[in-house]
Amino acid sequence: MSEGTPSPAPQIVSLDRLDRFCRDVLAAVGADAPTCDAVTRAMMHGTRLGVDSHGVRLLAHYVSVLEGGRVNKTPRLSFSSKFGAIAALDLDHGHGALGAYVGMGRAIELAETLGIGAVAIRNSSHFGAAGAFAYEAAQRGFIGLSLCHSDSFMRLHDGAQRFHGTNPIACAVPVEGSRPWLLDMATSAITYNRVQLYKSLKHPVPEGMASDQEGRDTFDAEDVDMLAPLGNEVGFKGAGLAGLVSILCAVLPGMALDFDILPMNGEDKSTPRRMGAFVMAIRPDAIVERHEFSGLMTRYVETLRASPARPGARVLAPGDREWEVADVRDREGAPIDPATEAAFREFSGTYGVALPFEENSRTL
Amino acid sequence: MSEGTPSPAPQIVSLDRLDRFCRDVLAAVGADAPTCDAVTRAMMHGTRLGVDSHGVRLLAHYVSVLEGGRVNKTPRLSFSSKFGAIAALDLDHGHGALGAYVGMGRAIELAETLGIGAVAIRNSSHFGAAGAFAYEAAQRGFIGLSLCHSDSFMRLHDGAQRFHGTNPIACAVPVEGSRPWLLDMATSAITYNRVQLYKSLKHPVPEGMASDQEGRDTFDAEDVDMLAPLGNEVGFKGAGLAGLVSILCAVLPGMALDFDILPMNGEDKSTPRRMGAFVMAIRPDAIVERHEFSGLMTRYVETLRASPARPGARVLAPGDREWEVADVRDREGAPIDPATEAAFREFSGTYGVALPFEENSRTL
Repeated sequence: MSEGTPSPAPQIVSLDRLDRFCRDVLAAVGADAPTCDAVTRAMMHGTRLGVDSHGVRLLAHYVSVLEGGRVNKTPRLSFSSKFGAIAALDLDHGHGALGAYVGMGRAIELAETLGIGAVAIRNSSHFGAAGAFAYEAAQRGFIGLSLCHSDSFMRLHDGAQRFHGTNPIACAVPVEGSRPWLLDMATSAITYNRVQLYKSLKHPVPEGMASDQEGRDTFDAEDVDMLAPLGNEVGFKGAGLAGLVSILCAVLPGMALDFDILPMNGEDKSTPRRMGAFVMAIRPDAIVERHEFSGLMTRYVETLRASPARPGARVLAPGDREWEVADVRDREGAPIDPATEAAFREFSGTYGVALPFEENSRTL
Repeated sequence: MSEGTPSPAPQIVSLDRLDRFCRDVLAAVGADAPTCDAVTRAMMHGTRLGVDSHGVRLLAHYVSVLEGGRVNKTPRLSFSSKFGAIAALDLDHGHGALGAYVGMGRAIELAETLGIGAVAIRNSSHFGAAGAFAYEAAQRGFIGLSLCHSDSFMRLHDGAQRFHGTNPIACAVPVEGSRPWLLDMATSAITYNRVQLYKSLKHPVPEGMASDQEGRDTFDAEDVDMLAPLGNEVGFKGAGLAGLVSILCAVLPGMALDFDILPMNGEDKSTPRRMGAFVMAIRPDAIVERHEFSGLMTRYVETLRASPARPGARVLAPGDREWEVADVRDREGAPIDPATEAAFREFSGTYGVALPFEENSRTL
């Protein structure tokens, strides 16, 4: 493509076809069936809800780490529990999405009988969109919480060096007859993907969201070396929340601290990263009857959605924006960015898997 | 005092004397012994650590609501549990600090045997500094989490009306041989007390932290009608976290939603506010051995404190600033603001309780 040629419209691909393609590629790579299923479901959660940074775009990364050996294609999972309501899941360096789904399943079982249950996951890896696993709990009628740390990308409040990962907090709560309340947020002010978007758009970075390599705030996406913690002047809050995530995901299960984790996109694709994660479930009827919980939760979200907005803006419950995207993509499919499309074509050739779109729909 | 006369230096009063005075006044009001103890400890946590908004300044408010009947001076607490690891505590409209301490005690007992335990508190009231109860868990060797909602004071992201309370999240984690890691944060960008401070100092409110009654950002503290959620451009994060607090403190235990709670400082001091709270404890050795947890936690906080700072700034772990204040106040006592001093003098007369400072140390 010569310079100045406008980018072609992205491929729009049905979710079913994308799902099938991801499963087939992962299977061709040699991942076992539970891994293929968990990784595909987690990526499709991202793609369906418009969280494209954590959608099928990740397939290329996951293939590289499964092939490289960093992530175990056929892990032997084992649970252990010293105490009743919290368990450890050793993921044997398998894929983080597998650990988080299996861990949430156990947390739900524990919550079923004990009202609340948690699982700390050991020897995990990048798990994708944190919201996928909280959503899983809500789909099954439970309040779900999922947390994961990562390699350092965020400075401390008033800090001048990367310290925490972007350490997301996700929570989902069932709403009767409706989609769950679904919060999925990085504890950094901004994600690195957003910085990259600003870079490509030559758009200034909003104030106090990212810093250069001396930790100074920068408006220039080209100068961004680290992310700021959520809060700007009160960035101790974002840094504190990121720390809480690190403590539950790394310190509690005895895993690598954020600054000891090998970088996600580093050269080394063979050494396991010793990451941890933490998932928790609570029965909505742990304290009051189910109908009372449901009634209050419905009143909460309905009052929220009816709350007056600032001029020209809308008030949304956590997840509302994502469910709107999901409605469109369920009908029409999801756009695939050019880099991901190219990776898919390569995988199709390498692994002999049918593409999810017409072979010659575009000359790249 | 005529206009233009400089304010006198505040009374500095030893913590022991303040503690004694609060207990004596609460007892004279007719609060039972557990209430006197819990309320005093919670206020002294605030005063000792420099969180003066939640320190002994609250005594006057608490006296008014105990006298008015909104808060029960002699509540009959009762636990119930449908499931093993999460319990309900009905506080019988007693003081929130009593509920939170007693609730955390039960959460710790549950965590002792089950690894994790939680208590949802019903029929509670303003509980003071959330950090006090998380700190209690850490002092006893557990990871502690305490949450409380309140009457509406914060707009939604892009909202133009008060919706959530300032809904704090507090967490404390034991650090061997050292003070706990202690995070205590409102999920609003700023507290209303801080706005009042800016008002008295005629200092502009930082950008995106507070709004006028149409929900527009304002720099003028005089115009502030509602607080912004933590995050400014990404205020959906602060609003989402505030919502999570509301769900666990109000929806789960079947209590009043934030916007249904009578205002803390309203005329009505007799009607119970039907607030809830949520506390949780986790054993640090739930997954790995205690020494492994301790070693990692120490490495985490020591690496954090050694992380490079921006020019002219310091990097602190959550709680470090507060522990520095506590060191000073343990030695020298705490300053008492003029309004609180006046209230103390009044209580001394009304209840026949000896003042914690010299009677005629100042002519007000």
